[in-house]
Order: sequence, then C-alpha cells, then structure tokens
Amino acid sequence: MQLNLSTDIALRTLIYLGQKDGPATITEVSTAFGIAKTHLMKVVMTLVAQELVISERGRNGGIRLARDAAKIRIGDVVQTMEPTMALVYCMRPEADESDCPLLPNCKLKKTFAKAQKTFLAALNESALSDLLPARPLKVKA
Amino acid sequence: MQLNLSTDIALRTLIYLGQKDGPATITEVSTAFGIAKTHLMKVVMTLVAQELVISERGRNGGIRLARDAAKIRIGDVVQTMEPTMALVYCMRPEADESDCPLLPNCKLKKTFAKAQKTFLAALNESALSDLLPARPLKVKA
Repeated sequence: MQLNLSTDIALRTLIYLGQKDGPATITEVSTAFGIAKTHLMKVVMTLVAQELVISERGRNGGIRLARDAAKIRIGDVVQTMEPTMALVYCMRPEADESDCPLLPNCKLKKTFAKAQKTFLAALNESALSDLLPARPLKVKA
Repeated sequence: MQLNLSTDIALRTLIYLGQKDGPATITEVSTAFGIAKTHLMKVVMTLVAQELVISERGRNGGIRLARDAAKIRIGDVVQTMEPTMALVYCMRPEADESDCPLLPNCKLKKTFAKAQKTFLAALNESALSDLLPARPLKVKA
C-alpha cells in the first residue's frame, strides 16, 4: 500500500512551497528532496494544470502555491495526483465479468470503495497549512 | 492508489475458497480469474504461511480456507499481503533526514498514518464471510 512516487513528490513540493517566503526554483526543490529534476518538472506541470501551483518566468520567477495553503486539502491532492484510484481490479472502469466471475455484483468493490472514501475524508481533515513546518526548512545549498 | 496485484489475487482467492464446498485446485482458481498459475502459486504460498489457507496433497487434496470465513478480516488480509504499508517516503523505516528535510518531525507521516489506520479499520468491519456471493460462482471449466 504505497502511493505513486509522483504523489509523494507533489505533497512534499507543496509543503516546500507553503513554508517558503517567495517563489522557489525547480533546482532548489529537487536539491531539497534529492529528486531528479525531470521527474519533479513532470509533477510540477500536473500541479500547475490542477491550479495548485503557479509557474512564473523571469528573473524573480519560479514556482509558488496558486492559493492559500489553508485551501488545499490533502485528500484532494492525493486524488488529483494518483494515476488510478482503483484499489482492486473490480474498481477499474473497464472491469469485466469475463475476467472475474465475482462481477457484476462484487462486494469487494463496495467494501474497498467505502474504505477509500473514509481514507480520503481522513486526509481531507488536514489542509496543507496544517502540514507546514513550524520553522522554515534548512536546505543544503 | 492501487493495491499490489498479489493482494488483489489473495482476496479473490479467499472469496473463491469461501464460496466453494470442498477444496479447490490451483488450476481451477487460476482459470476462474484468468491469473497466471505461477503468480497464483506464490500468492497461495503466502496465504498458507499466514495460516489463512491450507494446502492438502492427495487425490481429494487442494487448497481451502484454514479458518471460518467469519474469522478472516479484510483489513488484516491487506496488511498481511501488501509488500509495504509505507504510503509515503517518510513512513518507511529507513526514511532519513538526509533524504528529506521535512524529517524528523514530518507531519505528512502522522496524517497518512492516521488515515491509513481509518482505512484498515473500515476494511476490518468486513469479514470474508460478508464478501461471499449469495450463490456459488459459475466458473468456466
């Protein structure tokens, strides 16, 4: 039970941006978390597309949060970033009875859908602002 | 957010065994779910090691549940089968401050640990007996 690495990076990038006064560069964030710049850039592109992050060009440019950290819910970030929310086969839209005789009335599906809803609701109790460190991060240059 | 394929197979194998009157063969279960026999055998070995399934040799042998379906909790199966429960990097035992400046006091970790607990508790509200189909499965020979 592991989230996609991109979701993990997205969450940490958002925390980084939330604790920072002013925009950050891709190099800075990739150095802070020891993440490949190419991977981070892909994640940031998704965060920009999802209107969670703003990317600005120019001398004082960089990336920053698109909205207040109190308005970014953790469960929503997970749901946005994960490539699939289908915990088990029967939760996939393409799941077909010919592949699994437990369908169409799969109780597994309902049980997992309900537990996932609980999971996301528990995460949504926290906003990004709740996860920010008390002091700005000390990052190796 | 997707469980490991082995966990998915384990859950469906347990449901299959729970609805069946008498032992099942590996061939039978692999045919029912269109799963490779080699993969299913690995999963069954784990289920046997975890005392969820019994494997018996001989003419009337095969695999069957090691205990009553009412005594097998779904969250426990997930926790047993998943190779890792570390949803995010900071939940890994080897997580180190040199890799992530958010550690050692990572609030992300606490938030996810709490949500995961809720998820497993929701799954544990269901026993395998709750997921069994009302009628025995119709499986292609």
